[in-house]
Amino acid sequence: MSTHSERLRTWAGTLADITGALALLDWDRDTMMPSSAADARGHQIATLAVLHHRELMRPEFGEIVAARAADPDAAPSARREAQLLAHQRERAERVPEALVRELSETASEALAVWTEARERGDWDSLRGPLGRLVALKRHEAQAISGGHDLYDALLDEHEPGAHAAELAPIFTALAERLSPLVASGTAQPPPTLPQRDWPRAAQLQLAHDVAALIGFDLTTGRIGESAHPFSSSSGLGDVRFATRIDERNPISNVLSVLHEAGHAMYEQGFDPDYARTMLWDAPSLSAHEAQARFWENHVGGALEFWQIIEPRMRELFPAAMRGLDAGDFHAATATVCPSLVRVEADEVTYNLHIVLRFELEQALITGALDVQDLPEAWNARIDELLGVVPDSPADGVMQDVHWADGLFGYFPTYTLGNLYAAQLAATADIALGGLSAAIADGGFADILGFMRRRIHRHGALYPTAELMERATGVPLGADMLIAHLERRTLASASTRATD
Amino acid sequence: MSTHSERLRTWAGTLADITGALALLDWDRDTMMPSSAADARGHQIATLAVLHHRELMRPEFGEIVAARAADPDAAPSARREAQLLAHQRERAERVPEALVRELSETASEALAVWTEARERGDWDSLRGPLGRLVALKRHEAQAISGGHDLYDALLDEHEPGAHAAELAPIFTALAERLSPLVASGTAQPPPTLPQRDWPRAAQLQLAHDVAALIGFDLTTGRIGESAHPFSSSSGLGDVRFATRIDERNPISNVLSVLHEAGHAMYEQGFDPDYARTMLWDAPSLSAHEAQARFWENHVGGALEFWQIIEPRMRELFPAAMRGLDAGDFHAATATVCPSLVRVEADEVTYNLHIVLRFELEQALITGALDVQDLPEAWNARIDELLGVVPDSPADGVMQDVHWADGLFGYFPTYTLGNLYAAQLAATADIALGGLSAAIADGGFADILGFMRRRIHRHGALYPTAELMERATGVPLGADMLIAHLERRTLASASTRATD
Repeated sequence: MSTHSERLRTWAGTLADITGALALLDWDRDTMMPSSAADARGHQIATLAVLHHRELMRPEFGEIVAARAADPDAAPSARREAQLLAHQRERAERVPEALVRELSETASEALAVWTEARERGDWDSLRGPLGRLVALKRHEAQAISGGHDLYDALLDEHEPGAHAAELAPIFTALAERLSPLVASGTAQPPPTLPQRDWPRAAQLQLAHDVAALIGFDLTTGRIGESAHPFSSSSGLGDVRFATRIDERNPISNVLSVLHEAGHAMYEQGFDPDYARTMLWDAPSLSAHEAQARFWENHVGGALEFWQIIEPRMRELFPAAMRGLDAGDFHAATATVCPSLVRVEADEVTYNLHIVLRFELEQALITGALDVQDLPEAWNARIDELLGVVPDSPADGVMQDVHWADGLFGYFPTYTLGNLYAAQLAATADIALGGLSAAIADGGFADILGFMRRRIHRHGALYPTAELMERATGVPLGADMLIAHLERRTLASASTRATD
Repeated sequence: MSTHSERLRTWAGTLADITGALALLDWDRDTMMPSSAADARGHQIATLAVLHHRELMRPEFGEIVAARAADPDAAPSARREAQLLAHQRERAERVPEALVRELSETASEALAVWTEARERGDWDSLRGPLGRLVALKRHEAQAISGGHDLYDALLDEHEPGAHAAELAPIFTALAERLSPLVASGTAQPPPTLPQRDWPRAAQLQLAHDVAALIGFDLTTGRIGESAHPFSSSSGLGDVRFATRIDERNPISNVLSVLHEAGHAMYEQGFDPDYARTMLWDAPSLSAHEAQARFWENHVGGALEFWQIIEPRMRELFPAAMRGLDAGDFHAATATVCPSLVRVEADEVTYNLHIVLRFELEQALITGALDVQDLPEAWNARIDELLGVVPDSPADGVMQDVHWADGLFGYFPTYTLGNLYAAQLAATADIALGGLSAAIADGGFADILGFMRRRIHRHGALYPTAELMERATGVPLGADMLIAHLERRTLASASTRATD
């Protein structure tokens, strides 16, 4: 028994070590590596992924893991880790190696075509490769599920335990309530800041200051720069994130820092005892995203937050800040107005973009929608949801990388993150005696403490639904997010009215 | 045949990928990683080392490699790669796993004791663990060699193909000629620069400027900072080095840049066709060191080099440079004077430090000297060689980390590097019509071109002795280095005379 425990410990540790090394290879590629090394790094990442897969599938661990996963006397953390390992092995075993290779090659092809064809909206080029990729993803889903609930088989990779049938009513409720909410807005784009110079070095300092302010531990963390913000953890005591710096505008930097530090502080808060185990992780993408969205939307969306950092911004950007105050930044970030592109959408519109994608990708994977009919379906549905129609596929069906990269069942985790973030914010509001007041007081340690206790320290010990219900007392639902977005829309309208 | 070729290609590529990933894990640990992640990174490095070993020893490649290594019809590069792989496998196979583990654990123990006891020169604490480590290294050498030439078995790890019996006469010649040379010096420590402020940011800029000046390609390279300068290559298109910055003195930064850029430019010059093969490497440590020492000693030791960079130093450090010129930096780096500590030694004294260690570590490994008699042997021999005796083991037998880390047969590669560097410098002097004149003209592209053609591009295609004889036309010998050091000592004395 103890020998089995030790062998499992060593084995899971080895898997964690490879995963941690892969995280560093990714981090370095996106923040520091010369682009000339893209090929070499690609090989290194592929090799480590193969070694991870080989290690995961070592036959001698099959029985040990199955026994531990079903052992009622095992410690809950040990049993849960065995269940996670068994689940990963089971998924991997069901997909034949030939299909894995074909999927990888076809996704590479589709991604290359998308990268090249996206900007000019050249759907005709993408249609063929994307069609082949969808056909292969359907094969993969059939292999995993045995033929039932194809979409769930793919969703499970990103959001273990989720079922489209359970999410559908929530997404429908969002669509029904948010569409009129967006339509009720002023339908004017947000006020823009005057074109001024926000120097890179001062913005990087601001990134460090904002991250430290909200509780990111810089002694065990690092902040870098990247074209695409991301966070990355290679293990206990080393959590990093990269922000995007636009020297014409500081807002994307500040919101990137809140979002990515939200991810990063989650990883800094895992129970240290879980280091080098399967529990050193969030239980799903939505649980991770909820932390990022909480800090980005519920903290960064508050006027009080901008008031707190305004003096520091004035020190760092004395020229650019002339005549600007917290209200200008708040107005620029909090205005609700329908728009075509997800990554530029306001907080309300954003979720309708996800509803659209959730519906369409289900139809693609179940076979109800053919890839060649996708642009028409896209345009029809976004018109219903948002009252806007793209002139070009570049601002429509081709705007996101996900599908061309073979990621289906990924989009809903963004809105699931928003749903959980709203439920956590409502709970924190009660627990802290007012979230806005806590922000206004600079009480970020209390806010982080709330998240540490209720979410972070548990790592992947509980499945997401259980973790969240323990933290908030309520099951997943649309009410809290809708209430939050209604308040946001009201504030947006009143900001506009006083302009 | 072609299938064997492809399998070998994939296999060697996998090994190279793991090695490249390890290089990045090391680089990041020493330049960027929070120290809180030391334990996690240690596990990751150990895991990848185990996976590398497992991959190297895969039984199905034994016959394929042996056949290719002996195949007269194979391409020279393919045959050489198979020979290198076979050699690595053979060494690894001969050392039982239990001994590998015991060596690793005992070295960790000795290293920890050394780290703690070194500064106060507490030999009594180190003696026990070091004695056990030497005993285990002797076992390892016996396992590898089958009982003959114990020291060669260890030397071979760092300097494949070298034999102590062949090196001994060269080291003896160095001792006989350099001891009187050091004694003939002025025996005064080098002139020191006035205590001024050399700001970190400007020194980092200087590091980039000097590296670019001599030919380091910054578009495929990176420069970082570390307490211990080092260079690191994770593969084609990504070569990095770290320099050490002392804000009270710019000299160690400049010399570190020359030394590490020397290593790094070597790696940038490998034939791109060798990427992800065993030939993407230097054939030995001495070949690598020769490049570093060439730039550090034969370029950095020239007054002309300091004259070339003086204007840029004046721009970067207007205050600190007041009243200083190239001659001051040259004098501070080129003065010959016996000293106790290897890493602070001048270019002449340095090689006598290596002679001392080469003699003593052979005696330890062959069993002619017991560890408990080591300090006495050290003090007696350094007195003979340099005419100085340490007051404390801290400045004597305990000054270097190598032995406590289990590295025996490593020290001689430093002086081998100096010997090859002197031979390369003498050859370049003829080929370029005067090395000093080339430096004075800023003809660094010509100097680098010489090294590219004669050394860099070949990677590990030839064993070191063959590579060097092809490049210089002469076999390894002491004459060129002695001649160079005689000129250095003369210059040192004349610098002193004009003070």
